[in-house]
Amino acid sequence: MKAMSNKSSPKCPVASTMDIMNGRWTPLILRDLLIHGARRFQDFQDSLTNITPAMLSARLKTLEQHGIIMRHFYTQHPPRAEYILTEKGCSLGPIIDAMRKWGIKYEL
Amino acid sequence: MKAMSNKSSPKCPVASTMDIMNGRWTPLILRDLLIHGARRFQDFQDSLTNITPAMLSARLKTLEQHGIIMRHFYTQHPPRAEYILTEKGCSLGPIIDAMRKWGIKYEL
Repeated sequence: MKAMSNKSSPKCPVASTMDIMNGRWTPLILRDLLIHGARRFQDFQDSLTNITPAMLSARLKTLEQHGIIMRHFYTQHPPRAEYILTEKGCSLGPIIDAMRKWGIKYEL
Repeated sequence: MKAMSNKSSPKCPVASTMDIMNGRWTPLILRDLLIHGARRFQDFQDSLTNITPAMLSARLKTLEQHGIIMRHFYTQHPPRAEYILTEKGCSLGPIIDAMRKWGIKYEL
């Protein structure tokens, strides 16, 4: 842990990561993509109880802007998109997996 | 990732962990404790730019209620406390470390 900064400046890598992972929904969106590979908007709606379309749309947009997910059009007429993880997004897997292990050990 | 649930029910271990880690400050409080071992209230105030005493107090109280940190009185007259991680709290280390590694790789 020596390489960690003890200031919450923009340079702290834990803070940088948390700025992306922040909120309850983002880790669950990432979890679904890590499990299933590709997800349509409706798939997330079905999986994430109580998320509103506006919240889901905002989270997906933010993840896309950060290069963590991308849209893949699986039909062009009519245009139908699904979301997939980029390489950068896949690399968040160890964080989600560490959360899952901790949750299993202590919170269930 | 097969053991993950795809429902955000209270039973999902990722959601359970996120309910505790939620917000920008909690991972940074944990980071400081993992680096330094013990921290006084003022140490957190100095380290976490822009956190208000009320926010810090609320985060510490929540972490204490979840059994992740505990107060240790290092003097009794006057009573002076510092915060330390419990065993349960120490076990959040791999999550914070995974966040740190990802932040170093992608966000700095």
